[in-house]
Amino acid sequence: MYELGVVYRNIQRADRATADALAALGSATVHEAMGRVGLMKPYMRPIYPGAQVSGTAVTVLLHPGDNWMMHVAAEQIQPGDIVVAAITADCSDGYFGDLLGTSFQARGARALVIDAGVRDVKELTRMNFPVWSKCISAKGCIKETIGSVNIPVVCAGMIVHPGDVIVADDDGVVCVPAALAAKTLATALAREANEGAKRDKLASGVLGLDMYRMREPLAAKGLRYID
Amino acid sequence: MYELGVVYRNIQRADRATADALAALGSATVHEAMGRVGLMKPYMRPIYPGAQVSGTAVTVLLHPGDNWMMHVAAEQIQPGDIVVAAITADCSDGYFGDLLGTSFQARGARALVIDAGVRDVKELTRMNFPVWSKCISAKGCIKETIGSVNIPVVCAGMIVHPGDVIVADDDGVVCVPAALAAKTLATALAREANEGAKRDKLASGVLGLDMYRMREPLAAKGLRYID
Amino acid sequence: MYELGVVYRNIQRADRATADALAALGSATVHEAMGRVGLMKPYMRPIYPGAQVSGTAVTVLLHPGDNWMMHVAAEQIQPGDIVVAAITADCSDGYFGDLLGTSFQARGARALVIDAGVRDVKELTRMNFPVWSKCISAKGCIKETIGSVNIPVVCAGMIVHPGDVIVADDDGVVCVPAALAAKTLATALAREANEGAKRDKLASGVLGLDMYRMREPLAAKGLRYID
Amino acid sequence: MYELGVVYRNIQRADRATADALAALGSATVHEAMGRVGLMKPYMRPIYPGAQVSGTAVTVLLHPGDNWMMHVAAEQIQPGDIVVAAITADCSDGYFGDLLGTSFQARGARALVIDAGVRDVKELTRMNFPVWSKCISAKGCIKETIGSVNIPVVCAGMIVHPGDVIVADDDGVVCVPAALAAKTLATALAREANEGAKRDKLASGVLGLDMYRMREPLAAKGLRYID
Amino acid sequence: MYELGVVYRNIQRADRATADALAALGSATVHEAMGRVGLMKPYMRPIYPGAQVSGTAVTVLLHPGDNWMMHVAAEQIQPGDIVVAAITADCSDGYFGDLLGTSFQARGARALVIDAGVRDVKELTRMNFPVWSKCISAKGCIKETIGSVNIPVVCAGMIVHPGDVIVADDDGVVCVPAALAAKTLATALAREANEGAKRDKLASGVLGLDMYRMREPLAAKGLRYID
Amino acid sequence: MYELGVVYRNIQRADRATADALAALGSATVHEAMGRVGLMKPYMRPIYPGAQVSGTAVTVLLHPGDNWMMHVAAEQIQPGDIVVAAITADCSDGYFGDLLGTSFQARGARALVIDAGVRDVKELTRMNFPVWSKCISAKGCIKETIGSVNIPVVCAGMIVHPGDVIVADDDGVVCVPAALAAKTLATALAREANEGAKRDKLASGVLGLDMYRMREPLAAKGLRYID
Repeated sequence: MYELGVVYRNIQRADRATADALAALGSATVHEAMGRVGLMKPYMRPIYPGAQVSGTAVTVLLHPGDNWMMHVAAEQIQPGDIVVAAITADCSDGYFGDLLGTSFQARGARALVIDAGVRDVKELTRMNFPVWSKCISAKGCIKETIGSVNIPVVCAGMIVHPGDVIVADDDGVVCVPAALAAKTLATALAREANEGAKRDKLASGVLGLDMYRMREPLAAKGLRYID
Repeated sequence: MYELGVVYRNIQRADRATADALAALGSATVHEAMGRVGLMKPYMRPIYPGAQVSGTAVTVLLHPGDNWMMHVAAEQIQPGDIVVAAITADCSDGYFGDLLGTSFQARGARALVIDAGVRDVKELTRMNFPVWSKCISAKGCIKETIGSVNIPVVCAGMIVHPGDVIVADDDGVVCVPAALAAKTLATALAREANEGAKRDKLASGVLGLDMYRMREPLAAKGLRYID
Repeated sequence: MYELGVVYRNIQRADRATADALAALGSATVHEAMGRVGLMKPYMRPIYPGAQVSGTAVTVLLHPGDNWMMHVAAEQIQPGDIVVAAITADCSDGYFGDLLGTSFQARGARALVIDAGVRDVKELTRMNFPVWSKCISAKGCIKETIGSVNIPVVCAGMIVHPGDVIVADDDGVVCVPAALAAKTLATALAREANEGAKRDKLASGVLGLDMYRMREPLAAKGLRYID
Repeated sequence: MYELGVVYRNIQRADRATADALAALGSATVHEAMGRVGLMKPYMRPIYPGAQVSGTAVTVLLHPGDNWMMHVAAEQIQPGDIVVAAITADCSDGYFGDLLGTSFQARGARALVIDAGVRDVKELTRMNFPVWSKCISAKGCIKETIGSVNIPVVCAGMIVHPGDVIVADDDGVVCVPAALAAKTLATALAREANEGAKRDKLASGVLGLDMYRMREPLAAKGLRYID
Repeated sequence: MYELGVVYRNIQRADRATADALAALGSATVHEAMGRVGLMKPYMRPIYPGAQVSGTAVTVLLHPGDNWMMHVAAEQIQPGDIVVAAITADCSDGYFGDLLGTSFQARGARALVIDAGVRDVKELTRMNFPVWSKCISAKGCIKETIGSVNIPVVCAGMIVHPGDVIVADDDGVVCVPAALAAKTLATALAREANEGAKRDKLASGVLGLDMYRMREPLAAKGLRYID
Repeated sequence: MYELGVVYRNIQRADRATADALAALGSATVHEAMGRVGLMKPYMRPIYPGAQVSGTAVTVLLHPGDNWMMHVAAEQIQPGDIVVAAITADCSDGYFGDLLGTSFQARGARALVIDAGVRDVKELTRMNFPVWSKCISAKGCIKETIGSVNIPVVCAGMIVHPGDVIVADDDGVVCVPAALAAKTLATALAREANEGAKRDKLASGVLGLDMYRMREPLAAKGLRYID
């Protein structure tokens, strides 16, 4: 069992090359490759469109209205990490702004994923530091209560262990357990390999009904056509 | 009565020229022209700003987490159609991505309106295929259960019959029953005809209070001014 | 006590120079300078990104589905004002579009803040007239029931008195009571004065833990590190 | 096409005996008997537990914050009816209280189903007049705008035609199209007929896995057991 | 202007007899008597049905996840008060349980109205201490940050000044400004005086259409009947 | 790593006596004893008031609209278990009714905790089988897709491992990791031991300010009193 009020300094990060390679595949393909699990709730939205990243998770558990542990988490960041922040209760406060963004970016973080609010979004956009969050809020936080860094957390409905791979883009945020990263990458690459051919066929007007041979199973289920 | 588990192939589409002409008027004007009805719930949002379309509805009713019928619907699309997708229960899954988008576009569809989630939004934006949806989600679907195509559906609180006209832009999505399309177009055009003159007057500083002669009815209702 | 069904014509606006100066500081800094109060609920979002304004509040209280008082409020606008609209019950209707926007802009209004819906957002964006609202909806309103102008209102959870300063940007909307505007400006400027130095330090890799001398108080609270 | 601003006086009600017989089966069984469609959204809740009713729909479409048409609808009620009220936009106002409840009850209405708020719930409970609603709110309405009675409406996501059968209990509200009522009743009765035997088996410890012979299809789908 | 971080000890409570008399009228009648304003958002629900109270407001503003000021507020309670608690940001934590309930009750408080969560609801029900809250949550709070007592607060969308009258029952929570209490009571009593006669008429089958003479104005608005 | 599509038959349940003893303490006290963590989101509500249970978790992960795995889970129930059901995406369908309730009860289950909907609540109440759920819905499910039993799941925002202790009552649902059950019980009992004395003091009018010696720390934080 992990403890609370503790910073775990030595975490086992997923293989760097694997973690990096998952970004290009995107959250939808990675989610499919995992067997349609691993996706955070769809209320998690990027503060600006177009960002597409992957990285290894540094996790932090904070209390409502208190962002003290963000500074503690900053020290644990290594280049290629993505910070995943969970709160012990629903909270819409702005836990993170451009100063923390500057610090995270200086430490090598690629993004923040937070199940709460964020602020200074204009500046963070200008800095090209992407954040996926539940909401945007100018409301600041206090620094009174300790939390924990690098324990397993539940962020937007998904369990994230420190060192897991996070893949985030305009479609959402997926967590790939470190132990499954290599296999997921392989499956995702295979899945994507024949997407181009499929796309060409569909673009030429071939129907999915024919390309995927769906007519027979649909009829078997009882689908009828009426003119 | 229509049946379930059925694809109705012969639907009566609204007059093409009328359907096409409604796009330029926009959802707000069309909604007013109908007597302030016909609007889907405002949680329906475009995946990118600026798209403004109209077209004839091909409807599809799907089950939660199951997008099999999207492929069945694709075959029923004719150029100028907009697919309207309803789900039998609240669901946030991503029912539609760039492959289906490619297929729909190849068939001549102008847009998708779906009371659920959509994914591959970066690619769909690049393809210039607009989608109005309840949310964005990377979560994929299974293909196990049959639904129905071209039956009346309730999408985001609005009844849509196959062949009705859909008008969608940044303000939302309106459904115009096919039988009312011509009359709605006429009313909307009349409504818009004098908007330019009104706008010029207001821009010059004339008050709506005076332009619309509201001072007397307001006083009659009891409005008082206190200095 | 103020009365209902009344338009208060003579309101005490906050000092113009102070009201104008607050825009540059942004909602997050102003909210902090006030002691972390004054922020409207984070569901209030701008219809387009990048706008950053401040101004003096003209308030209006409307009934659900009825925007008649918008025209009454227009007459009370002076250059530099921001109209703050509250509804007596939750409503998502589109109370405001490009015609009213033209009128407001002609009167010198800088923005609208409304705890309801807005429409014609493409046109309002083109006009560069920013609106912060709860939602976007093409649904129009009737003009049947009188409300009140320039009484204290609760908008998105925050009390706003006529003449208060409104600060709004991508992070949200803050209300600064007129009597606190000068003090808030001074505090906010002081707060921002040393942000540049902090940002430089953080960008160079110095940790907030050290810059803010947090290590000792964290240890005192019981934070432990485990390798 | 039906018209707006109109009261349709002659509606075709579903067969009385069939409509009455559906109450005893309950919303869950009736919904299953229809092929798992027809259920209003689950936010529709009874104001007190235990009520279980069925009846023929008298429909009414109202505007936000305006309950004038409730009085118009009252006149169209016949004994055995259930009034189904829809609003043209989301609204939480209390459209209905004990006075209207007294009137509806005197006319023979069995219940109200409303996609908005209701008030005087203590009194309505005492009167034994059940209401299924979106919320409870003391907020009253104005009487300014006409709507329509006995046109098809969308209530809580479900299309209801005048004369359809409504079945409501603690599990929710189902609409059975009049043309399907007899068939639905037959299917529902058949469905319920062997529920007692199933319940006895399950109560004795027999597993659904065995009773429904699920082990083989589960294995065929790939389900594995690990000790 | 009031200050933050302060407890105002001397507040002007509304007249006791007036405050007490409003309970019997209920939130719906009082809300109408005020001109259909004053109602908190309908998400405020009682923890058990049937309670109906009125009293004078002691207000408290707390921070998310921090209930320290509840103890400070307890000291300011006088017999006949109702504590109204607002939070500076959305929070679902359980700020109040049976121990605080015991203390409040011992001080003479009649109820708590809180725009956040409450816990120990079984015990509070047993104690007959009613609470109207946004939600129920077992989550406890810290005691780290000071707030304010007896300043104006916004609770569930409604401004409440210390000393105002709160009326709460199964239909919701209304705030009556102290200066309007006497007039509101008079209006509410007059309103209720002829409710009995109306109810008898409606119970006998007379329609509201006739009792309120609505047929003519409805026709004037264009309502038509179709057989 | 655990696998998907698998039923883990041999799980390590928390000590029975410890698991059973936690019920009497209730969710609020247990949550505090764990350090204010472990609570599911407050939208989880009991289908009837008054139930207070604890037990060991059998977990099940299902797909939206598909309750097939409920039958698989039933076989894994041992007396004293509570089934914890999570869905791979947000879903409001009714996954569980009186037949499954009969089966679960026959197997010795004490309750169901499900992050989705439940139906037949009147019958389940009569059977005295408590369910904590996100909503109530008559909508039934299909049986097409396999899920997993006894893997770690996230239910209403909380991670639950098979064998953990679940404590549920009117205040909500708490998960106590099996490894922490004994320590949590000890802490909770100690916490409760002096609640009676505290309650008596508070009931006699002693203030928490004095009983907890809060006056000095509040003053140190800057709290001021103004007459």
